[in-house]
Amino acid sequence: MTVNAETLLLLESQAIELPSWAFGNSGTRFKVFGTPGTPRTPQEKIADAAQVHKYTALSPSVALHIPWDKVDDYDELGRFAEDHGVKLGTVNSNTFQDDAYKFGSLTHLDPAVRQKAIDHHFECIDVMDATGSRDLKVWLADGTNYPGQGDIRGRQDRLAESLAKIYARVGAEQRLVLEYKFFEPAFYHTDVPDWGTSYAQVSALGDRAMVCLDTGHHAPGTNIEFIVAQLLRLGKLGSFDFNSRFYADDDLIVGAADPFQLFRILYEVIRGGGFGPDSTVAFMLDQCHNVEEKIPGQIRSVLNVQEMTARALMVDTDALAAAQANEDVLGANGILMDAFYADVRPDLAAWRESRGLAGDPMAAYAASGYQETISADRVGGQQASWGA
Amino acid sequence: MTVNAETLLLLESQAIELPSWAFGNSGTRFKVFGTPGTPRTPQEKIADAAQVHKYTALSPSVALHIPWDKVDDYDELGRFAEDHGVKLGTVNSNTFQDDAYKFGSLTHLDPAVRQKAIDHHFECIDVMDATGSRDLKVWLADGTNYPGQGDIRGRQDRLAESLAKIYARVGAEQRLVLEYKFFEPAFYHTDVPDWGTSYAQVSALGDRAMVCLDTGHHAPGTNIEFIVAQLLRLGKLGSFDFNSRFYADDDLIVGAADPFQLFRILYEVIRGGGFGPDSTVAFMLDQCHNVEEKIPGQIRSVLNVQEMTARALMVDTDALAAAQANEDVLGANGILMDAFYADVRPDLAAWRESRGLAGDPMAAYAASGYQETISADRVGGQQASWGA
Amino acid sequence: MTVNAETLLLLESQAIELPSWAFGNSGTRFKVFGTPGTPRTPQEKIADAAQVHKYTALSPSVALHIPWDKVDDYDELGRFAEDHGVKLGTVNSNTFQDDAYKFGSLTHLDPAVRQKAIDHHFECIDVMDATGSRDLKVWLADGTNYPGQGDIRGRQDRLAESLAKIYARVGAEQRLVLEYKFFEPAFYHTDVPDWGTSYAQVSALGDRAMVCLDTGHHAPGTNIEFIVAQLLRLGKLGSFDFNSRFYADDDLIVGAADPFQLFRILYEVIRGGGFGPDSTVAFMLDQCHNVEEKIPGQIRSVLNVQEMTARALMVDTDALAAAQANEDVLGANGILMDAFYADVRPDLAAWRESRGLAGDPMAAYAASGYQETISADRVGGQQASWGA
Amino acid sequence: MTVNAETLLLLESQAIELPSWAFGNSGTRFKVFGTPGTPRTPQEKIADAAQVHKYTALSPSVALHIPWDKVDDYDELGRFAEDHGVKLGTVNSNTFQDDAYKFGSLTHLDPAVRQKAIDHHFECIDVMDATGSRDLKVWLADGTNYPGQGDIRGRQDRLAESLAKIYARVGAEQRLVLEYKFFEPAFYHTDVPDWGTSYAQVSALGDRAMVCLDTGHHAPGTNIEFIVAQLLRLGKLGSFDFNSRFYADDDLIVGAADPFQLFRILYEVIRGGGFGPDSTVAFMLDQCHNVEEKIPGQIRSVLNVQEMTARALMVDTDALAAAQANEDVLGANGILMDAFYADVRPDLAAWRESRGLAGDPMAAYAASGYQETISADRVGGQQASWGA
Repeated sequence: MTVNAETLLLLESQAIELPSWAFGNSGTRFKVFGTPGTPRTPQEKIADAAQVHKYTALSPSVALHIPWDKVDDYDELGRFAEDHGVKLGTVNSNTFQDDAYKFGSLTHLDPAVRQKAIDHHFECIDVMDATGSRDLKVWLADGTNYPGQGDIRGRQDRLAESLAKIYARVGAEQRLVLEYKFFEPAFYHTDVPDWGTSYAQVSALGDRAMVCLDTGHHAPGTNIEFIVAQLLRLGKLGSFDFNSRFYADDDLIVGAADPFQLFRILYEVIRGGGFGPDSTVAFMLDQCHNVEEKIPGQIRSVLNVQEMTARALMVDTDALAAAQANEDVLGANGILMDAFYADVRPDLAAWRESRGLAGDPMAAYAASGYQETISADRVGGQQASWGA
Repeated sequence: MTVNAETLLLLESQAIELPSWAFGNSGTRFKVFGTPGTPRTPQEKIADAAQVHKYTALSPSVALHIPWDKVDDYDELGRFAEDHGVKLGTVNSNTFQDDAYKFGSLTHLDPAVRQKAIDHHFECIDVMDATGSRDLKVWLADGTNYPGQGDIRGRQDRLAESLAKIYARVGAEQRLVLEYKFFEPAFYHTDVPDWGTSYAQVSALGDRAMVCLDTGHHAPGTNIEFIVAQLLRLGKLGSFDFNSRFYADDDLIVGAADPFQLFRILYEVIRGGGFGPDSTVAFMLDQCHNVEEKIPGQIRSVLNVQEMTARALMVDTDALAAAQANEDVLGANGILMDAFYADVRPDLAAWRESRGLAGDPMAAYAASGYQETISADRVGGQQASWGA
Repeated sequence: MTVNAETLLLLESQAIELPSWAFGNSGTRFKVFGTPGTPRTPQEKIADAAQVHKYTALSPSVALHIPWDKVDDYDELGRFAEDHGVKLGTVNSNTFQDDAYKFGSLTHLDPAVRQKAIDHHFECIDVMDATGSRDLKVWLADGTNYPGQGDIRGRQDRLAESLAKIYARVGAEQRLVLEYKFFEPAFYHTDVPDWGTSYAQVSALGDRAMVCLDTGHHAPGTNIEFIVAQLLRLGKLGSFDFNSRFYADDDLIVGAADPFQLFRILYEVIRGGGFGPDSTVAFMLDQCHNVEEKIPGQIRSVLNVQEMTARALMVDTDALAAAQANEDVLGANGILMDAFYADVRPDLAAWRESRGLAGDPMAAYAASGYQETISADRVGGQQASWGA
Repeated sequence: MTVNAETLLLLESQAIELPSWAFGNSGTRFKVFGTPGTPRTPQEKIADAAQVHKYTALSPSVALHIPWDKVDDYDELGRFAEDHGVKLGTVNSNTFQDDAYKFGSLTHLDPAVRQKAIDHHFECIDVMDATGSRDLKVWLADGTNYPGQGDIRGRQDRLAESLAKIYARVGAEQRLVLEYKFFEPAFYHTDVPDWGTSYAQVSALGDRAMVCLDTGHHAPGTNIEFIVAQLLRLGKLGSFDFNSRFYADDDLIVGAADPFQLFRILYEVIRGGGFGPDSTVAFMLDQCHNVEEKIPGQIRSVLNVQEMTARALMVDTDALAAAQANEDVLGANGILMDAFYADVRPDLAAWRESRGLAGDPMAAYAASGYQETISADRVGGQQASWGA
C-alpha cells in the first residue's frame, strides 16, 4: 500500500498548532525537572516552536497562554513570530494559578471573583484582537474536592452567566472554544467534566461557541472517536488538543500510548468532514515533555499526527461501506486495519524530501546544533516553567 | 438527628416503580440460576411486585417490557394489577433479543430492519394507550464490536430519523425517554453511550422527549450526581433507573455498592427540584437478583432509596449554603456528612408503623409465607427469565 | 524493514492453541445469536479448529473444556484430532454451570460442594492422562455479589486447601495453571482476582503450579506487559489466554482493541525468555465470536499474534539498550515504534507461500467452501453453545 | 445499636500515625496554594501534629520524611516531640526530588545512582536508630513515561538487588515496608505498581520486610479489602497509608470519597487479625489538604478512622457467619449494613468526654485559638511545602 498523490495533496494542507508551554519545563506535583536551554521568554518559546515547523512544515502557528505569554507589544511579538516563520494562534485564558481562583473562577460564588475572571477573558480577547487570533480557548480548573464544598448546580448556572458575558465580547470572526476535562486539579467534581456539559454550555451561547476535545480528558474506556463523530454531526467540534495517556491526563506525546486510537479518531475526523481546507476544526497539541527533550518531542508529535492522518486517509471507504452493508464484520474490520498497518513512513519521507524538507526531521534537527546553541546561550534568567 | 415531620411528609409522596423482569430469573453470560417460585407470566410478576408495595407502600406501579410482557388484553392486565394494589407503569421497548437486530435496530443500515424496530415502538405506544402509561422508555443494545464494523456517524443519523418517527406517534400526555449506557452488549461502540448523546438526541425531538439515567451505565469514576444536576438544570431528566455496581453494569441492589453515592445523587435530585409532588422525574428500579431472593431484594431496594432520600432531605441546606459562602470546606462537607451518617431507620420504622405498615418490611414479608406458597404453586410451565 | 531469516526461523516454532468453545455460539447475557454450521459435538469443534491450522500452520492443538467436551473415548477423540492434523491440548475444568456451584466451587463453605469440585478436577486429570495433555487450567467463577455474602478470608484459605488436593494428583509431567480474573460473573469480590493472588496460591503448591494470564482479565489501565515481565522473572508464567477488550472481559479477537498493547506484551515475552523452543509458556486463544464468523475469526486471531510476534522480534535490542543507557527517551521509544510500525504482512505472506501455505489464509479459507459445507450439513441436533 | 464497652476498650488502643508533610502546603501540578500559619520547620510540623493528638488521643506519633525533615540532632527532635505529647514514627525515604533520580533511584541503570539511593536509605536507617523508629517505609517514584524508555525486567532485577542491600542494614527490631502505587509520577510503567510486586519483592527479602497498602494507589474498581484479607493471610501486611480518592491518587481525607469502602477495609482488618494490641500492622494517614485547613483536616481524618473502626467492630460476626452458612445473601449483607448504618458518633462523643477529651474535637480545636496564633506567629521564612 503506498501513499497516493491524492492523499499527499490532502496532507499538504495539514496544520497542527503548537502550545507555547510545551517548550517550558513541566512535571508532576512531585517534581519538575529542569533542562538546559529551556526558554525564559515568550519569544524564546516561539523561536523553539519555529524549529518544529522548520523541519516538518506542519506547525505554522503557536498558541499563547495568558498570563504566561503576556508581553507589552503583541504587534512586535507577532512580527517576531513571522520573522521565525510562524504565526500566533489560539489564545488560552489560564485562570488556575491566581490565589483568587482557589475556589473557582467563572463559577465562583463571589461576584467579584467571577468578574475578575471575566475581565481576564476580556483581556485575552484584547490580545486576540492584537494578534489576529481566531480562537479563545477556555479551560477551567474550576471544581471542588469534597462533596458539599460547593453547590454543583449553582456553579453551573454561574458558569453559563459568565460565559455569556465573555461571548458577548467575542468578535464576529472570533470563536469561544470550551474545553472539558474529566478531573484534575479538582478531585470530587469538575464544572466542565465531559463533552455533554461543554456542548450544552456552548449551544446556549451561539454559533461561534464550540467544544474543544482534549484527547487525554476522558474517563477510562471512553470511546473518543464516537465523541468526535457526534460533535462533528452536531456542528460543534471546534478544536482538538492532542496528546496521549495511559491513566489520567498524562499529557504524553500524541500517539504514544495508543496509536490505534489516534488512527480511529482521525478516521472519524475525516469521515465527518473535520479535515481539509473547508474544515474549521483546529488541530493543536496540548502536551508536555517531563522527561524527554522538548523540541524533538514536539517534532515527533506532529509527525505522529501526520503519519496517522495519512493512514486514515488511505482507508478504502468504498470497500468499507460495501463490507458494512454485507454485515461482513471481519471484512470491514480488515479494511480498516489494512490502512492502519500500512507503513507510510518511507513514502512520507520521500514526499518530504520532494518538498525540500529533510526526510527525517528528527535527525535533521538533532544535526542542526540548535539544541546545543540554546543550551549554551540561555543561561541565567528564570526558565519558563509551568508556573512561569 | 431525628427525621422530622416535614421530611416524613415529603417521603409520603415517594414512589419507586418496579421492573417486571426483576422478578424473573436472571444471570450472567456464564449461567442463569433458577429458583423455585419464579413467575411464569406477566400476571405472576405483577403479583410479586404487589408484595413489595404491600409491605413498603413505596412501589405503586410496575414497568412492563415488551415483548416479554405482551398479553392479549391490557385492560384485563391493568385490572389484575389494580386488584393487587398496583398500576401498570412505564413501557420498555426491548429490541435486543430478536435475530433481526443482531447488527442494530433503530440504527440498522437496512431500512427494513429499522422499520421493524420503529413498528415495534408503535406497538409499545399502543400498549401505553391501552394501559394509560405515561413513558415509553427506549434502551438500545445497538452498537458494534469491532472498529470498522459499522459507520458510527451514519448510525447516529439514522437513530435520529428513527426516533423522530417514533416521537411523532407519542401522545400529548406521553413521553419518550431515552436511556444511555456506556457499553454492553456492544463492546467497541454503543450508539447511545453517554448522557450527552441522549441529551442531544432528545433535544432534537421536542419537549416530551427526555433522558433516562441508569445509575449503573457510566464509565468508571463518573460523577453521576453532576449529571443529575446538569440534566435537571437543562430540564431533561426524565427518569431514573436505580441499581448499583462495582465494575460494569452489575445491576446490583441500589445502594449496595456505594451508599454515599446514592446519597449524593438524591441530594442533587432534591436540590434541583427532581423530588416531590411537582416533579415529573420518574424513579424506577432496574436491577436483577442473580443470587439473592427476588421479592426481598426488591423490598430491600425500595427501602434503601427511601432511607437515603430521608437522609438527603435532612441536610441543613441553610447551614450548608453559609459554609459554602465562607469557603469553609470542612464545615460544608461536615454538614453533608452529618445527614448521611444519621441513622434514620428507627424513625422510619416508627413512621411506617404509624401508617399501618410493618416496621420491618423484610421480616414481615418473610413471615407472610408468600415465598413458600409461590414455590409450591408455581410448578411446571416456563419460568420467566431474561429471555422469557 | 524486512522480516529477516532469523525472525522467520523463530516464527516457525510458534504454536497457538485454540479453545474448542470458540467455535460454538456465544454471546452476552442479553442474547446469544445462532449461526448456521455451528458445531454440535466435540468432534465438529475439532474439525473446525483443524481448518485454522490447515491455513495457518499456527494452531496445532485444541484445548478442551470439561464437561462441555466430555466423550466416552478420549483415545478415539485424540485419533480424530490427529486425523484432522491437530492434537488435544490443555484441559479446562469448568465449574460455573452446575447449580451446586451457585455460591462457589473450590471455595465453597460446604465441604461436600468443595469435594464435588475437587472430584471434577480429578476427572479432568483423568482426561489429561487419556489425552496426554500437559496442562490443567483452572479458572474459577467463585466470588460474591454483595459485601457480607461470603467470608473473603475463609474462602481464600479453603481455596488453598482445595488446590493442594488437586495438585497432589497432578502428574509429574503435568502442570496446574491457575487463571485470575478481575470480575465477572461475581460482582463484588472474586476469589482469584489478580496475578498476585494466583501467584501466591501457586507458589504455595509447588514447581508445577503456574499462573495463567488472560489478557482481558485486568482492571482498566493495568500495564499487562509489566505482569508478563514480572511472572517470567519469578518463573511462574504458565500460559497466556489471548483476546482483547475495550471495557471488561469483552473476549474480542486478540489484537483488535489495542494492537500496540499486544506488541508490548509480546516484546516482554521475548525479552523475558517466554518465546521459542526452550520456553514452556503456552500460547492460547480464549475469546469468542459473538457477531463475526467463528473460523475466520480464529484465523484472523492467530495471524494477529504471528504478525505482532514478528514485529516484536524485529526490535533492534542492541540499539534499544544503548538508547536506554544514554537516557535517550525519544530515541529508545523510536526504536520500539520502528518495529511496531513495520508492515510485516507482505514478508509473512511470501514466507507462508514458500512453506506451501496460502499467502492469504483468510481468502483461502473463504474460497475453500468449508463454511458452506458445514452450514448445509450441520442441520438438526443441539448447537454447541456456551451452555452446551 | 449502641457502641458497647468491649468495642470502646478495643478502640482505646487505636493509634493512627500522622505524616509530617500533611501539615505543609500541597497541591497539584497546576498550583500549590499557600496558607497562613503553615509550618516552616520539622518542629513546627510536629507541633501541629501534636494538636491532632491533643484533641483526639488518636495520633500519638508522627512519620518523618527524609530529607524533608532532616535535622542535626534527632535526640533533640525526639525530645521536642515528647514535650508536645507525641513520638517520632516511621521514616520515609523520599527519592523523588533529586535531579539524579530523574530516570530512577533503586532501579536506575547506572550503579552510581543506585548506590546514591541505597546510601540515602542507609542514612534513613541511621535516623531510625536515632529516633527509635520501627519502620523504614520505601515508596519509589521509579518508572518510565514511554514504552521502550526503560527495560522493565532489568529494572525489577535491580530493584531486588538494591532492596537486598538496604534490608541487610535494617536492624533486628526494625522493618522495611515497601509501598506500591498504580501510577504517578510515572505514566507508562511503575516499578512497584501493585501489591503482587511488593509482595514478591518483600518475600524475597525476609520476615522483617512487609507490604504497605496505600488506599489511594489502586486501579479503578479494585477491591481493596480483598487485598487486605490476602496480605493478612500471607502475613505480609505491614502498614496502611490511609486517604481517599475519586479518580487517581487524590490524597483526600480518609473516608471522604467512599465511607462504605473504608468500613469494608476495616472489617477485613479486624477479621484478619490486623487490629488490636497484638497486631503489628501500622495505621497511618498519607494524604494532603490542598484546599481545606490542615490541622482540622487531620483531626477529621483520624475521627473518620475511629468512627468507622467502631462500626466495623460492631458487626455481629456470629449472626453473619450463620447467614453465610445458610446462603442467605440478603440476610448476611443486611447484618453488615446494620453496623455500617449505626450512628456511633453520639456514643463516641460521650466516651471521649468520659476520658477527659472534648466531645467534639473539631469544635474544641477551632475554639482553642491555635490556628490564629500560628497564623500570626509564623511569618517569614520558607513555608514547608511539597518541595520543602
